[in-house]
Amino acid sequence: MVAKNEIKRIRSLHQKKYRSRLGLFLAEGTKLVTELLNSPLEACGLYASEEGILEEAVMVTEAELRKMSALSQPSKVLGVFRIPLQASPVWQGWTLALDGVRDPGNLGTLIRLADWFGVRQVLCSPDTVDCFNPKVLQATMGSIGRVPVIYAPLEETLRHSGLPAYGASMEGESVGGVTLPQDGILVLGSESHGLSDTVREELAQTVAIPSYGQAESLNVATAGAILLYELRRGTPGLTQK
Amino acid sequence: MVAKNEIKRIRSLHQKKYRSRLGLFLAEGTKLVTELLNSPLEACGLYASEEGILEEAVMVTEAELRKMSALSQPSKVLGVFRIPLQASPVWQGWTLALDGVRDPGNLGTLIRLADWFGVRQVLCSPDTVDCFNPKVLQATMGSIGRVPVIYAPLEETLRHSGLPAYGASMEGESVGGVTLPQDGILVLGSESHGLSDTVREELAQTVAIPSYGQAESLNVATAGAILLYELRRGTPGLTQK
Repeated sequence: MVAKNEIKRIRSLHQKKYRSRLGLFLAEGTKLVTELLNSPLEACGLYASEEGILEEAVMVTEAELRKMSALSQPSKVLGVFRIPLQASPVWQGWTLALDGVRDPGNLGTLIRLADWFGVRQVLCSPDTVDCFNPKVLQATMGSIGRVPVIYAPLEETLRHSGLPAYGASMEGESVGGVTLPQDGILVLGSESHGLSDTVREELAQTVAIPSYGQAESLNVATAGAILLYELRRGTPGLTQK
Repeated sequence: MVAKNEIKRIRSLHQKKYRSRLGLFLAEGTKLVTELLNSPLEACGLYASEEGILEEAVMVTEAELRKMSALSQPSKVLGVFRIPLQASPVWQGWTLALDGVRDPGNLGTLIRLADWFGVRQVLCSPDTVDCFNPKVLQATMGSIGRVPVIYAPLEETLRHSGLPAYGASMEGESVGGVTLPQDGILVLGSESHGLSDTVREELAQTVAIPSYGQAESLNVATAGAILLYELRRGTPGLTQK
């Protein structure tokens, strides 16, 4: 059993406004919650609708869990975690920067990719979707507990980083032909508008993924996948895991 | 104005059962519908809720369009198209084969990638999600009109293709070190179970994407993006567009 007020408070975390106000976010699903419990993040409440899935959790009914859940198909485990203090950027290795990515699935997938490719941090423009949105968290598959995500004005931050920034753009140079440094920033634009003009001014170079067919463009997460792969491939000094 | 019965018939196309029975599918959004009108697909009905978006369309009210729509945020244009006869596979160039991909967004994104990388066809196991599902179509961004999608038992088809099949698998050889032929088949497994055992038996080799971080796995669409990029990069005989 859980008090009505508590359910209401947890439900409020579906919205960014209340996440900011309470400094908390909601994670769902056994896998995601378990991954976050193994990360430096601090849990403030754990709920399960089935005995034995998660020892530390408070038992609730399925109906109660459904009320708390932000998903159309609620899972059996839900956790409330504290939003960590925003990390300071570290200008070493590669940073992934996102200029107005709006789709939660895309942001989550990009954070997961950043984790796979050992990217130091993900830098988001203020108009990028909130990384503690439940759909983003779902798509990160737990990588949110390992990769620092930093929201900051992109132009200024790129300018002060001291690192060369490479922007993904259809008119750029084919990425396979570009010699990439050991430390740099890969910048991806929004789904509908690409890179903004002010961000373009801060770039060392634009890079493109060669096309062999007729599709007009690639989805931002798949473009990010290819470019992160290529920059790792192209910088052999980096150790493979 | 459009008859109630017609709305009902169009709504039924949200379900695979009725798509198969009627031999029709539903496409939504100005961009997607326009792309399909420029493809060999045959349109059987066009509807728009705003004057001047699509000349050939029948004008309907927003309420009517909302009733027909399969999307939570209906757009202003909707088209009904005939499901094309399934193409016969052509064993030349590269084929992308999918072994039980269930998520509509992933399938759509993979069809779009196949189009970008000039893949000859997409071969789907019978338990892969239907490519005429409205969410798949949305994610293809029109590529469904250009890339043949073929549903067939995977094991048999791979065996009779005469081409070497490369399966994506975490234990495979790092893809950058594999010499790939001009013609072949790239096989991707399902989101939750990877490649099935019977499909593995038909493979020439398994290939992996090197990891530099801590994420356990990659989403199937982003893994496909990287592998398609790599096989194009690795077969320089193929002409870039």
